[in-house]
Amino acid sequence: MQGFTIAFVPTMGYLHEGHISLMEKGRQLADVLIASIFVNPAQFGPGEDYDAYPRNPQKDSALAQKAGVDVLFMPEKNQLYPEKYETYITQSNLPRFLCGLSRPTHFTGVMTIVAKLFNIVKPHYAVFGQKDYQQLAIIRKMTHDLNFDIKIVGAPIVREPDGLAMSSRNKYLSPEQRRSALALSRALAQAQQSVATGEIRASALIETAQKTITSVRETAIDYVVIGDPETLEEVSVIDRPVLMALAVKVGQTRLIDNCILSPPVDKTS
Amino acid sequence: MQGFTIAFVPTMGYLHEGHISLMEKGRQLADVLIASIFVNPAQFGPGEDYDAYPRNPQKDSALAQKAGVDVLFMPEKNQLYPEKYETYITQSNLPRFLCGLSRPTHFTGVMTIVAKLFNIVKPHYAVFGQKDYQQLAIIRKMTHDLNFDIKIVGAPIVREPDGLAMSSRNKYLSPEQRRSALALSRALAQAQQSVATGEIRASALIETAQKTITSVRETAIDYVVIGDPETLEEVSVIDRPVLMALAVKVGQTRLIDNCILSPPVDKTS
Repeated sequence: MQGFTIAFVPTMGYLHEGHISLMEKGRQLADVLIASIFVNPAQFGPGEDYDAYPRNPQKDSALAQKAGVDVLFMPEKNQLYPEKYETYITQSNLPRFLCGLSRPTHFTGVMTIVAKLFNIVKPHYAVFGQKDYQQLAIIRKMTHDLNFDIKIVGAPIVREPDGLAMSSRNKYLSPEQRRSALALSRALAQAQQSVATGEIRASALIETAQKTITSVRETAIDYVVIGDPETLEEVSVIDRPVLMALAVKVGQTRLIDNCILSPPVDKTS
Repeated sequence: MQGFTIAFVPTMGYLHEGHISLMEKGRQLADVLIASIFVNPAQFGPGEDYDAYPRNPQKDSALAQKAGVDVLFMPEKNQLYPEKYETYITQSNLPRFLCGLSRPTHFTGVMTIVAKLFNIVKPHYAVFGQKDYQQLAIIRKMTHDLNFDIKIVGAPIVREPDGLAMSSRNKYLSPEQRRSALALSRALAQAQQSVATGEIRASALIETAQKTITSVRETAIDYVVIGDPETLEEVSVIDRPVLMALAVKVGQTRLIDNCILSPPVDKTS
């Protein structure tokens, strides 16, 4: 397809409105829209939910077609990881933070599959959701470091009407856990509100968020962090737009969410 | 340059006839020939000869032009490894053998720079010398594993008239060391001769080679190995074409060489 531009949306399937928004974004960016569905074994650690991860290829195909996908790539596991597969992509810094702490091999698996798919699809644009904020930051950095000639585009988190960030893993939640899971988005909204009204201490914002989350049933905090939006390093004062990111187990389901905290514009200057 | 094919020859410069043969090979393969010269810091370990590695960009430019190179890419170190660079490519198996034993980070550096250059140059063909046999095997595997749409082409070792494999590091040798260095190619030729006349025991071939090398002055063996040409795993019987590979320090200069040992065709079957 020489002369055409290609936008690419890699996914693990079980598509929801979050994925569809990525596809709509891709549709606007380029002549040809390619999506992939592949539950990538390399990014699941031992004891994680690779086998249980929800799959629905038929429904996904229909949804992708409706979203304007021209080519849907659904490879088999042994096509991408044949016997004696042994090449992986690593980063020394960004994976040390946030989800990398409890999932030490996760981002190596993510980078490896994304690089493979980039080489297969050869896109001009690739679209990733901001819900997996660290993943987006790591893929941006990998793309830059390894000189991939691909523009990485981030797309906003899509939420349920009550605020829960869309995720294929929400399917695991019982009705009660579903209610508890709202504590994540509520904690973020509270922090945004506090920053808007003058709170600039990360420690105070984090403490409030922790209370909000632990006050509901079946929650266990993995992390509540406020960090630099590029390096992910922790910050103590909200003196510029910064990332607030959470990972919380609700029952056995690990959920993540994040937002940007922006201090109010100083009207005196 | 749409519609044109590109062949690529990555080098560390200080070009000799070995490099020129790679360029001539590339010239035959494609419409456009691109070469690069970059002494890659990531593939030198602590205490190795990164700073001392010979450089002669002006002479190299003239030689490359004469060899038919259309584009010579000579990036600066901080263009390819800017501050905060952190992404690397690793392999879990092939780098465990041969040179990887004494140079544990070397092939991660090699794979990383080659992947970066592949993404910058976007070649259809890339040509590498068989003198760096393990490097060639690792790059072939990386290219396959990471789904680079690039054909990797190996080119035979080019030798001085007396048998010494061409290498930019030969420049380091004193006249006496230059004579000792001939033991490498002599040991390989003796092994080929022995196999042709019926010796099939790897242990016997290795022992003879070790004696040949240690019988000359200023040599210290790093390894003498007979292994599978693809997996590099040691073999004990020469029942098919196998790799014989050597690394030897001559004075302070580490030299490598290799050949294929092929058992005589069985005329009784």
